[in-house]
Amino acid sequence: MNGGAGQRPQRIRRGVVHESTTGKDTAVATIGESEFDRATRLIDGVGQIVDGWDVGGNANGGYLLAMAARGMAAEAGRPHPITVTGHYLAPGRPGPVTLDAEVVRAGRRFATVRATLQGAGGAILEVLGSFGDLDGLRGGFSHVHGSPPPLDPPASCVELAAGAPALMSKLDVRVRPGDVGFGVGRPSGVAEVAGWFGFADGRPVDPLALLLVSDAMPPAVFNLDLRPGWVPTVELTVHVRAVPAPGPLRCVFRTRFVQHGCLEEDGEVWDSTGELVAQSRQLGLLPRG
Amino acid sequence: MNGGAGQRPQRIRRGVVHESTTGKDTAVATIGESEFDRATRLIDGVGQIVDGWDVGGNANGGYLLAMAARGMAAEAGRPHPITVTGHYLAPGRPGPVTLDAEVVRAGRRFATVRATLQGAGGAILEVLGSFGDLDGLRGGFSHVHGSPPPLDPPASCVELAAGAPALMSKLDVRVRPGDVGFGVGRPSGVAEVAGWFGFADGRPVDPLALLLVSDAMPPAVFNLDLRPGWVPTVELTVHVRAVPAPGPLRCVFRTRFVQHGCLEEDGEVWDSTGELVAQSRQLGLLPRG
Repeated sequence: MNGGAGQRPQRIRRGVVHESTTGKDTAVATIGESEFDRATRLIDGVGQIVDGWDVGGNANGGYLLAMAARGMAAEAGRPHPITVTGHYLAPGRPGPVTLDAEVVRAGRRFATVRATLQGAGGAILEVLGSFGDLDGLRGGFSHVHGSPPPLDPPASCVELAAGAPALMSKLDVRVRPGDVGFGVGRPSGVAEVAGWFGFADGRPVDPLALLLVSDAMPPAVFNLDLRPGWVPTVELTVHVRAVPAPGPLRCVFRTRFVQHGCLEEDGEVWDSTGELVAQSRQLGLLPRG
Repeated sequence: MNGGAGQRPQRIRRGVVHESTTGKDTAVATIGESEFDRATRLIDGVGQIVDGWDVGGNANGGYLLAMAARGMAAEAGRPHPITVTGHYLAPGRPGPVTLDAEVVRAGRRFATVRATLQGAGGAILEVLGSFGDLDGLRGGFSHVHGSPPPLDPPASCVELAAGAPALMSKLDVRVRPGDVGFGVGRPSGVAEVAGWFGFADGRPVDPLALLLVSDAMPPAVFNLDLRPGWVPTVELTVHVRAVPAPGPLRCVFRTRFVQHGCLEEDGEVWDSTGELVAQSRQLGLLPRG
């Protein structure tokens, strides 16, 4: 997860999406030519963990999962991740990585792929995923028991700024004001964090990027009465349910069960039309502050 | 998931746990010497999909996941599954299978293992899991936002009998009366199924068996207004959170999002002391009745 003891925000400030006061690039990057695309690119299975997509020096888990899934989708010749699970083996440090991906089965609807992402020091991430074409699945019976989290407009939400993880400079994340009190020693007492997600460079969020979104917010558990600290992810599973419509996404992450040193965090990601586009769950280790 | 168009219960009856009128063995089997243990045994990576653990001829997904995880835990030399994900590649038919398991990383706390379960016709299941010792994780900060589903005693719940999947003869599953109306054309309208879980032969439920529990109930989606039918599981992830205390388990499965041909089902399994012992989520395909 995206948090570390030395990395929690010391200052928080309000910001406005696409306003230049954020110090971020306001030009709109396109899919294929964005920071995220450059940071997840693999050529012949070789890529690079790019500095700046980290939390306290360790690459964000969603970023690593997206990089692996990009290579796996290419290997399978399918456009979209449908359900992807990563098990985190060692921290990812900036530098070269290789992806060893193998198509286990190529079916009509889905192809299933397993992969290992290796860094200089050994395996970082083991991944299992099924890939397909979300456009080909569209329509049919629908049942939605849930709704996007209630959020004030991005301009009224809180941008994690100085003291926040480096990752945040790549993103345009605006957290619900009541959910960031942990940063100043006032956790809300409710293990929930909700907010808006976009890329700092304006790149649209596609299905691949939803893997990053699913791990991009501060851990919901920070809002309980325990010291924030490093929350290593053991396993993260993301179900991509639809291609997001253009516009910022509304996300909510909740931790319902902390016990015996482990916690789960469940995420929902909703697009600008109010459709659920991803669901995530991760198993993490309790902060050891 | 555990359901098929031709396999939905035509008759339902009330039953009493351990009463001989169920026609089930009332002797208490032990871990290692039970039907479940015999049906999941692997010797030098070779096992058998045993007839009777199926739904309409296809082996139950939780049963297959448990068989694979048993071999993976042995390969890793760790007692318990902690988080296990299976991707279902082809139906499992009775007959010999082989498990090819590889330890990806053996850490202090967890060992991560990938595996392929192969049948006569090719790969059936691809699995990725982390294994460890739940007893060694006990204690520490605890936060539980949730509680076991409200259930009448097992004797007042409904046993799926004639017409139910063959699997049910191996289990002592008692479903909340309001949740089985789908079997007689009266779905509740709420995509939820709750009930009690035990083994028919009285074997205690250990962490390995929780993988079976997580896929043992009729699909929650059957309680929506669509024709019950075969609900193939694409992916199933189970987090095992604690070793269950003795006694029957209370389970609840809910489907919140059905869209574009896919559905998720979330499960919670609680032991007799009221502790959450497993959480599951699966991605399945909509019934095509």
